[in-house]
Amino acid sequence: MEVLTTSNDQLVYNALSFAVAAMAISFVYYLVSRSRVSPAYRSAVTMSAMICGIAAYHYWRMFSNFSEKAPFNEGYRYADWLLTVPLLVAELVVVSGIAKEKAKGVTTKLAIAAVLMIAFGYPGEIAKAGSSASMIWWIVAMVPFIYIIWILFAGEVGQALKGQSGEIGKKLNNLRYILLLTWSVYPIAYLLGDSESFLAKAVGLDSAQSSTVIQVGYTIADVLAKPGYGLLILGIAIARSKAEGYKEV
Amino acid sequence: MEVLTTSNDQLVYNALSFAVAAMAISFVYYLVSRSRVSPAYRSAVTMSAMICGIAAYHYWRMFSNFSEKAPFNEGYRYADWLLTVPLLVAELVVVSGIAKEKAKGVTTKLAIAAVLMIAFGYPGEIAKAGSSASMIWWIVAMVPFIYIIWILFAGEVGQALKGQSGEIGKKLNNLRYILLLTWSVYPIAYLLGDSESFLAKAVGLDSAQSSTVIQVGYTIADVLAKPGYGLLILGIAIARSKAEGYKEV
Repeated sequence: MEVLTTSNDQLVYNALSFAVAAMAISFVYYLVSRSRVSPAYRSAVTMSAMICGIAAYHYWRMFSNFSEKAPFNEGYRYADWLLTVPLLVAELVVVSGIAKEKAKGVTTKLAIAAVLMIAFGYPGEIAKAGSSASMIWWIVAMVPFIYIIWILFAGEVGQALKGQSGEIGKKLNNLRYILLLTWSVYPIAYLLGDSESFLAKAVGLDSAQSSTVIQVGYTIADVLAKPGYGLLILGIAIARSKAEGYKEV
Repeated sequence: MEVLTTSNDQLVYNALSFAVAAMAISFVYYLVSRSRVSPAYRSAVTMSAMICGIAAYHYWRMFSNFSEKAPFNEGYRYADWLLTVPLLVAELVVVSGIAKEKAKGVTTKLAIAAVLMIAFGYPGEIAKAGSSASMIWWIVAMVPFIYIIWILFAGEVGQALKGQSGEIGKKLNNLRYILLLTWSVYPIAYLLGDSESFLAKAVGLDSAQSSTVIQVGYTIADVLAKPGYGLLILGIAIARSKAEGYKEV
């Protein structure tokens, strides 16, 4: 990572600290919120807690590294995503209302695609700025990315959502679009983070700005895609639990 | 431990950090998952939580040592295993369906063998690379290792499993094979970690590569043998609880 100018430095520092607070408190929030939903949907809320807990740890490590001016280790983000992205897709299946006998297969497919997406992104992320490796791995990682979106909108999850109406159907539809929107930030931030990429050049970022944009971009996307997305999951799980007659005691 | 080259260094660093996150979050996950199984099987899930909690602490210590470039202390791994391996075999007995009057005796035998296996491995691990002590202790530690495998496949646990059919029988059988597979990584990583051993020489590892292989190998095996194995234990405990009419509220 390039040496950052002072104000950029301050921005990344504050963004990482903000994320530690947001993730850690969301971890606790989702843990205590488990009892608000019926046992059938509880694992979705448990997964939200785990996602935020894992992210809290990694943001703490990134923040510590950054404040010690150690070389920035992108490995933390990828280790985090390797653990959390399969959980993000798995919790969506739990609340999607997909038939139980299909759920396991869909979860497996989504989780494998998620792991491949992260594994393909990493060598590109740590490749030299402007190298062809950076662009090639970006393209390769987009294949499982698009496959996941396809399952959510046209494949098994898309089909299951067609049959849902009323408040729950609307919430599920929002959930899909929020996922698509927040996840789209990642490939864009990746390109902007490579100061020699066509996109960074088009926007006119120098290498210090580029480093700031990628770190702040990933951080905002993570806060929306983890604690934010978890709120929608919780809302759907509560609505389903109520509809099925669950009452917290 | 030898001074590691930069990319090897980064790999071990990221593997240790990844394990901290995986173990810590699994600790919380198994704690909150206790209510999913009936009281009869709850101690198995509690043990999974304890195993992951103990490992989270030791990985945290190893990670801190490693990032401070302190000499690597293999004692952390052996202290971890001394506490966790008896629990790993004990939780298998809880879900195995072995008759209650036999369970205590089998658990004691397995736990003693586990403690001996770890205790015999340690002097070999810290012996000089290529020394005969390294090889002799490896052989001595393999004796309780093979005894444990024998109990699981032919002895009391093997006999108890013959009587189990259906989904639970299948899950138990998978559990045994996963245990055999993940545990086999340890004696192999031990040999590859001694750069003067016949195996490291056959593979052609120099001493820096050898140090990396042993640390990454042990870490992957630990993640599979602790949180991964715990998922199978939880699955069996849930299936047994359901079969016996337990319902989470």
